[in-house]
Amino acid sequence: MAGEAVKKLDNLGKKLVKDIEEEKNPSMTIPLRALSNVVFDRQDRTLRIGDKTFVRSFFNVAHARKFLQTVEVGAISKDLLNNNKHASLRDVFYMAKRTIPNTKINVVDEQQESDNAVEDLEMITGSWREQLHINANKLGAVAGNVVVEDAGDTIDWSKLGSGGWSIPSNIEELKFKKVDAKYVIYMEKAAVWERLNEDKVWKKLNCIIISSQGQATRGIRRMLQILSTQYKLPIYVLTDFDPWGIYIYSVLKFGSINLAHISDRLSIPNAKFLGITADDIEKYDLKKHFINFKDVDFSRLDQIGSYDWFKNNKDWQRQFKMMKDWKAKAEIQALSARGISFISDKYLPDKIKNEDWLD
Amino acid sequence: MAGEAVKKLDNLGKKLVKDIEEEKNPSMTIPLRALSNVVFDRQDRTLRIGDKTFVRSFFNVAHARKFLQTVEVGAISKDLLNNNKHASLRDVFYMAKRTIPNTKINVVDEQQESDNAVEDLEMITGSWREQLHINANKLGAVAGNVVVEDAGDTIDWSKLGSGGWSIPSNIEELKFKKVDAKYVIYMEKAAVWERLNEDKVWKKLNCIIISSQGQATRGIRRMLQILSTQYKLPIYVLTDFDPWGIYIYSVLKFGSINLAHISDRLSIPNAKFLGITADDIEKYDLKKHFINFKDVDFSRLDQIGSYDWFKNNKDWQRQFKMMKDWKAKAEIQALSARGISFISDKYLPDKIKNEDWLD
Repeated sequence: MAGEAVKKLDNLGKKLVKDIEEEKNPSMTIPLRALSNVVFDRQDRTLRIGDKTFVRSFFNVAHARKFLQTVEVGAISKDLLNNNKHASLRDVFYMAKRTIPNTKINVVDEQQESDNAVEDLEMITGSWREQLHINANKLGAVAGNVVVEDAGDTIDWSKLGSGGWSIPSNIEELKFKKVDAKYVIYMEKAAVWERLNEDKVWKKLNCIIISSQGQATRGIRRMLQILSTQYKLPIYVLTDFDPWGIYIYSVLKFGSINLAHISDRLSIPNAKFLGITADDIEKYDLKKHFINFKDVDFSRLDQIGSYDWFKNNKDWQRQFKMMKDWKAKAEIQALSARGISFISDKYLPDKIKNEDWLD
Repeated sequence: MAGEAVKKLDNLGKKLVKDIEEEKNPSMTIPLRALSNVVFDRQDRTLRIGDKTFVRSFFNVAHARKFLQTVEVGAISKDLLNNNKHASLRDVFYMAKRTIPNTKINVVDEQQESDNAVEDLEMITGSWREQLHINANKLGAVAGNVVVEDAGDTIDWSKLGSGGWSIPSNIEELKFKKVDAKYVIYMEKAAVWERLNEDKVWKKLNCIIISSQGQATRGIRRMLQILSTQYKLPIYVLTDFDPWGIYIYSVLKFGSINLAHISDRLSIPNAKFLGITADDIEKYDLKKHFINFKDVDFSRLDQIGSYDWFKNNKDWQRQFKMMKDWKAKAEIQALSARGISFISDKYLPDKIKNEDWLD
């Protein structure tokens, strides 16, 4: 894997050297990362980057700085790959922030500059950030009847007590050795994960439970995608009944505008929204636990309701309408009002048995 | 452990029943949790709760609601303990939010009410929240030559790949089976933890590495305290050079006003601040990577500088003065400018060898 990324970075370097030897203006062609070049692929039901590209060349006052930054970050990435080390975006920023000899000019002054260079390199090389050994955030825990190999260790996710395995920011080199599960439940809240883990839901229902805290990190999304595509496991998403929870589901399933250029490695078109839904709230009499909408909730709900993939979906529009009529949201933990293990003993088994989810 | 907490809750219940049988006004005596009753114990160098108490009684219009809430949350806790289940504060809120029969009055309407009841119960029973089976947040990862037993599993912290063990919110029932380490490095940033873990610093330096993301959770603080007091390991704290990083250290070492009533179970008087310090910035030529102070940084720095335990400490006042003169802060990752593994290969070994820390 590392070898492939090094080769791609090498190819970029060789191309630039060739330009110089041929006395051409050194240049690189980069797919355009902008809203105007993001499309919703109706076939795959995923946000993707379109066909537009632009050329960045060295002898161009408007391009020279970004050109240098891209080459510098490429060199940093190659160095990381050759030394088999990984860095965070923040590390890469500090490594790139060197002063050009005999000037007072830094290669980068703001992290946004090195971040952009990393994204450009993803587009140019077709290797994504994690393959370039540049890590995203570390967050989340996992448990289940699964054995993985990672960094030389064999790790059994079913034997990690009340803590679980802490999910690394980068799972590119993780190998699944055994996956004995019928599906995956991903939840946005660590407290809900602790509930399901204490109740040994992953054992009783034979599934994998994964949590983050809020939005799923890239490491978690990639892990879910591998379990979905390579191990054919259904992915069920468990969030609050509010626009933010539904957005978490939306990003997992359809991708996001920011990361449209790597949708094929992150999005999970088969993911299902398990709950909690407006119908759960009625069925389990949870209206008492409503949290009233604020202005920001209304506007976020309208935004999400108008997404390409939701706007013609009757089931989702019905949910949005109920939320809007109620002017209220509800948390997944409201289920605790029915008993601390109601979620484990009744809610989840029933939902899954009845295939009671939104698509 | 659970048995002890149940007994204490039982004692509270029996006391109230006795009051009723003797036709007295049922009442409970609670230590006062207020700034006026928080003292800095100069001997132990820890924030503690003072001797003031107050009496809450049932037949008192101003007390009746809180009285009921405390009893209700006590009953929920006893139920959790008897069923060997744990709940989050949010769960407890939803469980307590029931409507009193034949009225429209809920036992609690806001989470703050059940949270306060939990704190009152901590004070009344002398059992802290985790012992009452009410969990705090789950966050953080750990690695090292340590074996623990938790929830029936034996977990080796040296064999968990690039992820490490995910630290549970509640470590009351965790048992250390083997602790082979000379000290503990706690850091505020998960990205720094990933750096040290990839470089196998815990193996090379024979230490334990623990991270959260920002403030340490109660689970992490308790774990550090056990390693400090029961295993006599020095605890070294690694944060950014800014008021927020120093505050993280301050809370770990001296405790906090909010949690002064359980300082003896959380604070770590022997903790040392490893870095990064103003001297590190000079020594390793990191001024180039300064981040300019904003107004909020100045006021936070003044606040921290005036804490009882810092205001007469010359070493710390010197640090604060340098930060203030520079009008700037610096991040731990600025060390990456010296090389991606500079922190692992040079910075940490030198600092620890030279005992170059602040107390």
